[in-house]
Amino acid sequence: MLGNCLENVRKKVPLVHNITNYVTVNDVANAILACGGSPIMSDEPKDVFDITSICGGLNINIGTLNERSIEAMFIAGKRAKELGHPVLLDPVGAGASALRTQTAVRIVDEIRPDVIRGNISEVKTLILGSGTTKGVDADAADTVTDENLDSMVALVKEFSQRTGAVIAITGAIDLVADAEKCYVIRNGRPEMSRITGTGCQLSGVATAYAVANPDNMTQAVAAAVCLMGLAGEIGVSGLKEGEGNSTLRNRIIDAICNMDAKTLEEGVKYELR
Amino acid sequence: MLGNCLENVRKKVPLVHNITNYVTVNDVANAILACGGSPIMSDEPKDVFDITSICGGLNINIGTLNERSIEAMFIAGKRAKELGHPVLLDPVGAGASALRTQTAVRIVDEIRPDVIRGNISEVKTLILGSGTTKGVDADAADTVTDENLDSMVALVKEFSQRTGAVIAITGAIDLVADAEKCYVIRNGRPEMSRITGTGCQLSGVATAYAVANPDNMTQAVAAAVCLMGLAGEIGVSGLKEGEGNSTLRNRIIDAICNMDAKTLEEGVKYELR
Amino acid sequence: MLGNCLENVRKKVPLVHNITNYVTVNDVANAILACGGSPIMSDEPKDVFDITSICGGLNINIGTLNERSIEAMFIAGKRAKELGHPVLLDPVGAGASALRTQTAVRIVDEIRPDVIRGNISEVKTLILGSGTTKGVDADAADTVTDENLDSMVALVKEFSQRTGAVIAITGAIDLVADAEKCYVIRNGRPEMSRITGTGCQLSGVATAYAVANPDNMTQAVAAAVCLMGLAGEIGVSGLKEGEGNSTLRNRIIDAICNMDAKTLEEGVKYELR
Repeated sequence: MLGNCLENVRKKVPLVHNITNYVTVNDVANAILACGGSPIMSDEPKDVFDITSICGGLNINIGTLNERSIEAMFIAGKRAKELGHPVLLDPVGAGASALRTQTAVRIVDEIRPDVIRGNISEVKTLILGSGTTKGVDADAADTVTDENLDSMVALVKEFSQRTGAVIAITGAIDLVADAEKCYVIRNGRPEMSRITGTGCQLSGVATAYAVANPDNMTQAVAAAVCLMGLAGEIGVSGLKEGEGNSTLRNRIIDAICNMDAKTLEEGVKYELR
Repeated sequence: MLGNCLENVRKKVPLVHNITNYVTVNDVANAILACGGSPIMSDEPKDVFDITSICGGLNINIGTLNERSIEAMFIAGKRAKELGHPVLLDPVGAGASALRTQTAVRIVDEIRPDVIRGNISEVKTLILGSGTTKGVDADAADTVTDENLDSMVALVKEFSQRTGAVIAITGAIDLVADAEKCYVIRNGRPEMSRITGTGCQLSGVATAYAVANPDNMTQAVAAAVCLMGLAGEIGVSGLKEGEGNSTLRNRIIDAICNMDAKTLEEGVKYELR
Repeated sequence: MLGNCLENVRKKVPLVHNITNYVTVNDVANAILACGGSPIMSDEPKDVFDITSICGGLNINIGTLNERSIEAMFIAGKRAKELGHPVLLDPVGAGASALRTQTAVRIVDEIRPDVIRGNISEVKTLILGSGTTKGVDADAADTVTDENLDSMVALVKEFSQRTGAVIAITGAIDLVADAEKCYVIRNGRPEMSRITGTGCQLSGVATAYAVANPDNMTQAVAAAVCLMGLAGEIGVSGLKEGEGNSTLRNRIIDAICNMDAKTLEEGVKYELR
């Protein structure tokens, strides 16, 4: 079934509007193209109403937010919701600065994104709804492990119910949940954290998946998370002597580009809770 | 003769000022370096007068335009023209938003660029001079094909006559025209559209070619278009099992880097109309 | 001993705040990750106070400066100094525009960075303290050669004494100096200048090295310069037929990623003056 989600993206070529950071934006664009979508980037308040109107979905990533781009996020976000387009929020660095935390909290409250994807520290910051700054490092209690899995699954389901969004937390174990069910995903490789932007890429790809699979967005986001993790596994397995994180970056996007439904179905490792 | 254009770039190492989008800017810089030029990026209104003054040409790409960078485009564009530097306009997304269309139209009218390079939809938007938004997708009637080639060639020649600019439209068939002649170019591979930024890279490279070949700018731009297409062919032909769009991106820039006049001359596929 | 510097970075995983240009920012992030650090990018004045507070050091690169990011540089720079975090300045294009020169001079005067890393033309502009624009091209007298080495070494030592900063000038011969000693480094390959951003990457990596080696910052910066040069040598030596600057870019970051203390120690080529 996750394979169907992939095929829908390749068939429909969803156009995704991205308001995203300038660090990983090129990889986000190439990852969206690799998965079968079509990316367009715009963060000027005077431009985004028109741009998001012609797209199928909106990916908001606050990684290098500024006053101008924050204004654009709200204009585009409201317009996208008006049009019924899926909106994804990637709250990069929520908890690391007051501006990031407040912006992410306001986006959740005022735009009501359809999907929220972040690491555990970022999502916990949103769950607490706090405007105070914390560190960027997930503390030990902030990791999803087999020991705390039950309580984490309950936490994300509850947050999904409260916000109406599909919640995706990525890390060693990934969780993708709505109010009723949670995909517990064990694809991926630790080497992926040595590359900047695999999370940002996933958010772009997940938006494309949400757009192309509007009737089952939780499954679509789970498929995107599995895809990214599996691409990481394929990328790492192909590394040769002397190759490192820069080559791995290319291999992961290549693996997304070459992924088909059968490979995805055979490679996914998840259980439903 | 196209080979001479290449050699002039390698000999003169033209310094190109780029006001370009943050999505593909790194690839634009590496492509300009690969072809033998030297890139410098600046989009702050208070910085661009000085920067463009020490360069040989200016590449204006409106891909992620904002109010600040638009102001910079006009300051730099006017200064570059004053100094007799070639100015290229890449009207990314003209037709997709009112701001992009209006900005591109104003640049054509007020700066009078020496070269305009875009896809067929973007250039048609400029030809119509319309400030109304359309979609980003080229509709079927907007493709250059063998069937409509004669009328398309007439159209770009007429637009070149009206604007005084060399017009380059890239797609499955590329057209590079001035008022009198049109290069119809059939280099390139469809896989190039799976990578973000091959068009942006071409615009940067074409600016370097225009700067280094001031007496025959139409031919210089045609050489750059052939170079990019041929680099795409070489890049695709080198792809191995499991490689995808990210590796292809690297291979294309590598091919530009290794291109010499002889390889270019032997690989070009064009006719003059 | 340079190997110890490397190991300290891998052990301490220093968090580096980067206010840097959008051209090479992705490579800077991946290079910092490759060397064992952890990068975070932010250039919004309202965000940088918090962000730099949770980091261990600050890398200021003026490559695509604008009014907003300049304001952020001063806020973050002053905060980082208050907290005793190492601050590095990369004065990209100082001498090429009045804005760049003045901004770099002001940062030296008002923030008092701990490390300044640039090419010879940029650093000479700072030494002259001039607010007038010059060209971006290093003129012949501006190259470090075996002939002018003694006077160049004296010049950078004097500038280090005046500013209190470790001075790193990179080119065919690299110099890393404090008031008393100067590392004269002969690692690196000319092919590195065909890639955009090796200097920017080095500045990011050198900041991570400074943070992890606070008691011997001159040595730490020298280690980073040797690391980058050696990575360039390894990258070039691995190039195969048909590969060019884009593949080299990946190979250099890969080589940083795979570098260990032993390889670094065996590969460094420097003398102390």
